[in-house]
Amino acid sequence: MTFTEHVEITGHLMDTGVLSRVLDDIREYGGDWVIEKIDVGRKYTDMSTATIKVWTEDEDDLQRLLMRLQTRGVNMVDPGEAAVDVAEMDGVFPDGFYSTTNLETKVRFDGRWVQVENPEMDCGLIVERNDGGTRVYTLPMADVKAGMNVVSGAAGIKVTVPEADTSSEHFGFMESDVSSEKPQAVLVRQVAEGMREAKANGLKVLWVGGPGVVHTGAAPAMVALVHAGFVDVLFAGNALATHDIESSLYGTSLGVDLSHGRGVPHGHEHHIRAINTIRKAGSIKAAVESGVLTGGIMHALVTNDKEFVLVGSVRDDGPLPDVYTDVIDGQRAMRGKLTDVGFCMMVATMLHSVATGNILPASIPLVCVDINPATVTKLADRGSSQARGIVTDVGLFVEQLAIELVPEYRRKD
Amino acid sequence: MTFTEHVEITGHLMDTGVLSRVLDDIREYGGDWVIEKIDVGRKYTDMSTATIKVWTEDEDDLQRLLMRLQTRGVNMVDPGEAAVDVAEMDGVFPDGFYSTTNLETKVRFDGRWVQVENPEMDCGLIVERNDGGTRVYTLPMADVKAGMNVVSGAAGIKVTVPEADTSSEHFGFMESDVSSEKPQAVLVRQVAEGMREAKANGLKVLWVGGPGVVHTGAAPAMVALVHAGFVDVLFAGNALATHDIESSLYGTSLGVDLSHGRGVPHGHEHHIRAINTIRKAGSIKAAVESGVLTGGIMHALVTNDKEFVLVGSVRDDGPLPDVYTDVIDGQRAMRGKLTDVGFCMMVATMLHSVATGNILPASIPLVCVDINPATVTKLADRGSSQARGIVTDVGLFVEQLAIELVPEYRRKD
Amino acid sequence: MTFTEHVEITGHLMDTGVLSRVLDDIREYGGDWVIEKIDVGRKYTDMSTATIKVWTEDEDDLQRLLMRLQTRGVNMVDPGEAAVDVAEMDGVFPDGFYSTTNLETKVRFDGRWVQVENPEMDCGLIVERNDGGTRVYTLPMADVKAGMNVVSGAAGIKVTVPEADTSSEHFGFMESDVSSEKPQAVLVRQVAEGMREAKANGLKVLWVGGPGVVHTGAAPAMVALVHAGFVDVLFAGNALATHDIESSLYGTSLGVDLSHGRGVPHGHEHHIRAINTIRKAGSIKAAVESGVLTGGIMHALVTNDKEFVLVGSVRDDGPLPDVYTDVIDGQRAMRGKLTDVGFCMMVATMLHSVATGNILPASIPLVCVDINPATVTKLADRGSSQARGIVTDVGLFVEQLAIELVPEYRRKD
Amino acid sequence: MTFTEHVEITGHLMDTGVLSRVLDDIREYGGDWVIEKIDVGRKYTDMSTATIKVWTEDEDDLQRLLMRLQTRGVNMVDPGEAAVDVAEMDGVFPDGFYSTTNLETKVRFDGRWVQVENPEMDCGLIVERNDGGTRVYTLPMADVKAGMNVVSGAAGIKVTVPEADTSSEHFGFMESDVSSEKPQAVLVRQVAEGMREAKANGLKVLWVGGPGVVHTGAAPAMVALVHAGFVDVLFAGNALATHDIESSLYGTSLGVDLSHGRGVPHGHEHHIRAINTIRKAGSIKAAVESGVLTGGIMHALVTNDKEFVLVGSVRDDGPLPDVYTDVIDGQRAMRGKLTDVGFCMMVATMLHSVATGNILPASIPLVCVDINPATVTKLADRGSSQARGIVTDVGLFVEQLAIELVPEYRRKD
Repeated sequence: MTFTEHVEITGHLMDTGVLSRVLDDIREYGGDWVIEKIDVGRKYTDMSTATIKVWTEDEDDLQRLLMRLQTRGVNMVDPGEAAVDVAEMDGVFPDGFYSTTNLETKVRFDGRWVQVENPEMDCGLIVERNDGGTRVYTLPMADVKAGMNVVSGAAGIKVTVPEADTSSEHFGFMESDVSSEKPQAVLVRQVAEGMREAKANGLKVLWVGGPGVVHTGAAPAMVALVHAGFVDVLFAGNALATHDIESSLYGTSLGVDLSHGRGVPHGHEHHIRAINTIRKAGSIKAAVESGVLTGGIMHALVTNDKEFVLVGSVRDDGPLPDVYTDVIDGQRAMRGKLTDVGFCMMVATMLHSVATGNILPASIPLVCVDINPATVTKLADRGSSQARGIVTDVGLFVEQLAIELVPEYRRKD
Repeated sequence: MTFTEHVEITGHLMDTGVLSRVLDDIREYGGDWVIEKIDVGRKYTDMSTATIKVWTEDEDDLQRLLMRLQTRGVNMVDPGEAAVDVAEMDGVFPDGFYSTTNLETKVRFDGRWVQVENPEMDCGLIVERNDGGTRVYTLPMADVKAGMNVVSGAAGIKVTVPEADTSSEHFGFMESDVSSEKPQAVLVRQVAEGMREAKANGLKVLWVGGPGVVHTGAAPAMVALVHAGFVDVLFAGNALATHDIESSLYGTSLGVDLSHGRGVPHGHEHHIRAINTIRKAGSIKAAVESGVLTGGIMHALVTNDKEFVLVGSVRDDGPLPDVYTDVIDGQRAMRGKLTDVGFCMMVATMLHSVATGNILPASIPLVCVDINPATVTKLADRGSSQARGIVTDVGLFVEQLAIELVPEYRRKD
Repeated sequence: MTFTEHVEITGHLMDTGVLSRVLDDIREYGGDWVIEKIDVGRKYTDMSTATIKVWTEDEDDLQRLLMRLQTRGVNMVDPGEAAVDVAEMDGVFPDGFYSTTNLETKVRFDGRWVQVENPEMDCGLIVERNDGGTRVYTLPMADVKAGMNVVSGAAGIKVTVPEADTSSEHFGFMESDVSSEKPQAVLVRQVAEGMREAKANGLKVLWVGGPGVVHTGAAPAMVALVHAGFVDVLFAGNALATHDIESSLYGTSLGVDLSHGRGVPHGHEHHIRAINTIRKAGSIKAAVESGVLTGGIMHALVTNDKEFVLVGSVRDDGPLPDVYTDVIDGQRAMRGKLTDVGFCMMVATMLHSVATGNILPASIPLVCVDINPATVTKLADRGSSQARGIVTDVGLFVEQLAIELVPEYRRKD
Repeated sequence: MTFTEHVEITGHLMDTGVLSRVLDDIREYGGDWVIEKIDVGRKYTDMSTATIKVWTEDEDDLQRLLMRLQTRGVNMVDPGEAAVDVAEMDGVFPDGFYSTTNLETKVRFDGRWVQVENPEMDCGLIVERNDGGTRVYTLPMADVKAGMNVVSGAAGIKVTVPEADTSSEHFGFMESDVSSEKPQAVLVRQVAEGMREAKANGLKVLWVGGPGVVHTGAAPAMVALVHAGFVDVLFAGNALATHDIESSLYGTSLGVDLSHGRGVPHGHEHHIRAINTIRKAGSIKAAVESGVLTGGIMHALVTNDKEFVLVGSVRDDGPLPDVYTDVIDGQRAMRGKLTDVGFCMMVATMLHSVATGNILPASIPLVCVDINPATVTKLADRGSSQARGIVTDVGLFVEQLAIELVPEYRRKD
């Protein structure tokens, strides 16, 4: 017996290769298809629409396939009404729950489409209905409570893929590949333009950074960017903050003598002492206020009243008192800072970049800069389709970005 | 004014280049030195001893330099007696606390040397004195309580570097460098020999693994190694366990169809559903017992009564119910499993490898296998001097290791 | 003014993303298009056909665009007759010459299609007409002579893309991406199957290798493959042969002691002496026959009467007497060995792999194995669309391949 | 029976780890040793001297070991007189020939030390004696003629290791390791200083470059450096020149649209046509003079009367008419340009960097910049002890270098 559904997709189908990925998905789930109709855009600016009949041998497979296809922007022709199941245990979704994408999503109840709040990947959809109407929002698995209403299956759901702004110059780079062989000066200008645009629209610039920011000597440039207002929020771990503080307290970062470019590999002694000093002060902010910490990125964030969320990892020493040691609490804190973010810049960290990519709506432009191609590729592979990767030297890139965005930066040098 | 101390080091000084690293350290801390005496081993098997006078302009610098030198096995000629300060706050060491190495360490009180329990890097030394005598043990910063006695400064402390077994064949590889151009079949045999030796001595083999173990197809080989008794403890994160379980439940790992080698990049839908299934069961063990989970690495560990510690990270979905979401709790759980570990095998994970390297005594042989040279290099850079790195394909390496260690493995293939 | 042409493409258009690449090409050449007709395959096994009108502002651009599109298998709807220009100088093609692909190609004269001999990339098409009919063959730029007839422009030419054998198991891997996270044991079996199939069809297996074959300890496995008949031709440089011979003469390769896995980095002294020894003998064959060279890959090739082409590079010492020091002569020698090649295996060399990829017809299956993702990616980027890349450890991969293909191999171990 | 020799080494032995490498060499050649005397520098600025007795079981091994040790600056205590053998065949050295290092070398005849001309690695030493005295010079194996006198064995030879200028700021970086985690702005300044110093001393700056110079957008910066006199000679292959010329003729490089940072992978059609155009003109210089080529790096070199040597490789298309297709001829041409070179900058090429490292005297400062750590490591591994490696983005690095060295560069931007 076969289970069948008609789905449709609209967009620059010929142009983007999305159709071949959709057909790959169908094959992966053991399904088959017929393309029933295809309306091809004749010109470059035209949109195409395809209607595809898909079927599988198993009903569950079909539901799961339909959910998967939604990550590509494929919706059912006749989505029907959303179904809801009740969670029976805390922290566990009902079987067959709808697993979210980070795309703009609508859910239909009683013939009306309700917009989902805060789109995020790999969550469930919680439904609250009361006199004020129906509210649907994403919730991570760990936060679901017994008794909550959770959307089940793929019916009654519609997602919208953000339109790639193909006409525009900026962010035309790296749409689908990762390379170190691109003219970097152009990329610097494009990233600067993206940040300026976010600020011009009253939106925040979110940075996600690893300790490489400090090791590569990018800290002074980043401090200049903080002062100039191009860093509204920082997501990082214990390492970036520790090495930044160590560098301010002792002029070193993991034993690398930063002003002369000489380095010795270890130097664990410096950083553990730096952490102890801040723990004694009570917090990074307290250390700034008491005059213990007088420079660096964290100091700049505090003195400019910018926000940061530091989330720990299993390899941390200390950690600094500001670090969330519970990673789920840390994720919650990060989610709390996403409102009004209009641009996201990931630098020299795989762990926190992937974490941020998971919770960031697909509509927010995102750039990942790392010297390691694997980091950039991994990020793209995680499904953050809006991610642009730049394989380059972090120190020089951030330096160039500061020169581009902060006219007075070089004079201080 | 200068502050002076005489230090000495014994070992294969000419042979290992350690002396040049010691002098680099002195320079890094702004110090100077005179080599007062050097007793050179005439023959290859002889040990050399050097006595060095070191001085700095600042007394604190000297203390810190002396602590640093101990990471190289350099001790004071006249160590004197250990000094102790009282911790004034929970979670904060006194200023000037002695920051530990992972070397065998002794502390002198009243003219007697006390052996430090459980050597570990970047901790403080806690002193407990009572009628039964004096006990000294390492404690991470987060666990110190106000009122505890903490060793301060470098006086009264002696460390011992494990002697590299230079006469022996195994583990002659990779003493100081990381390379992908080594005959891999030889390395496989050397690692196998290290594991057999640990087991023959009644010691445990600890594995530290990342999800690459599953992606590269190494899971069947690792299952065979679990059954054959060569995996006593596993340290990992949410990802390895999830992808292993996903692979058992759906035959895929992040969408990679493992039996045919075809892959599609994303597939987030599978893994989130796998996690939900195990959360519903209550734990991995419960899922095995109830028949939900019937294969894979985690299943093999449970059915063979082996131990595992899963520690979460900020990018985790779910996570699985067995995962420690608090990383400091996770570190404590890992420490709890180190007793009687005689060999450590790190595969395809930087995060958990570095975390384990931090808490593992220097005396335990340790091998790190990864296809990414950066991971192996990073581990060595963290100060795990006993680390040997092998840059190779994880899937083929573990496969070869299983063929070497488990005679019946290939017949099942 | 605009210049217009109608082109068509047939294939699994939806499935392969080729259409989006075609449209990218048009945009790159400053052109525009309308998709006039598209006949979509309804089912997975169906072929699709698209007819596209393309135009540019400049006639030369259009001709060049049409040539470019042929690399995708896009032909003109009405190709007309081929035009011919006469070369005016040795070593220089006429302006506007047709630049070849490595696809099966036909050229039309007087209404009849003539098959192009030996398809190869980046060449010109030479036309010879006499009583016996019309002959068209590829010729590299360096070999063209004044007075030769050279096809000009895109008219009268038709190419055929080899059909990806999507139904078959083997070589489903890596169709469009490069990854180190694939189950390697499966890949080994697929490569073995490809070699067996070539041999079963009476075709030759061509290996292209770099010195990493020796450094990673793969030489014994490769020797076994030579003896078993799975290496018919070897393309390499001075380095592979030298390190192989050095290893036979002195038991080392660039100072790496291969039997113990210990290595020291340099050792230039060994290899220059090995080269001198072979130069004295006159050739590798002479050194084998006189008993100077008694083992290794080159010895196995000589004693099994297999062929090799060694082409030098600017960094060579010596070189060995068999090495072509003129790279254009070397390319000619390589071309001379391509007849009846049915499978190509590239191992641990970027330089010779790219060189071989340039001259190999697209119809020959090709696998590139390297631990460095950049090598594999570079190869694919060069336009060798038939290339499959495997990022893995060369030593273990060739070892596994020998175990798979040569049953008695392990017993010798 | 054992064969014994006394050797000595003077230098910062404790500081540099050279002694441990010497002992490794002895072990690799199956030898043994006793350190008979060691005179330790007491202070940082003091030199140490060690006298070591070495012995082997075989006389040939001893001779070869002594030659190897000379690459470390280890000389015989009593070198005696040099021995000479006569070459019996063209292109073949006598057995037991002395294989050269790239260090300053002296040879003793009749009690007088003769300075070796043009030190270069892996060559023989040719002796010419006549009324004017004795002349000794290096000669590559391919160039030796029957009847020439060639130094044999290690006797009568003394080498001098260039003193690392440890007191100085510049070039303290990266003495023994390769890292991407160094503050890049500092490295830029150090390289700039090295170039300024060479020019101030009336010496030439040699660049060795790969096509990545063009792909990463560094060409405009490099053009500025040519105009400002910081590029006296360029060693490269067909690819750098072709992509540079292609970029000037068509505004693309291998299909990468450089002004917008958009790229498509292939684009073979552009570059083959660019080569044909230059071949038609006859040479790059002729193309500049006839107005065909009006911009780019090669154009800048021609118009500024700077020199370049292009040496081909087996993967070349065309090649350009200026390219040496015989690699041994190419090496000769490169050697011819080394006179008065005072600084060498290697950018984005492994092949030509290694080739240059082989023929460059050890006394010339050398910097290798690449985004791929493997390239930098490989260069160091080849024995170019004077090589400093910087893992960074080539485009940004050369851009920054131009800003540092050419004050007016940014204004043009």
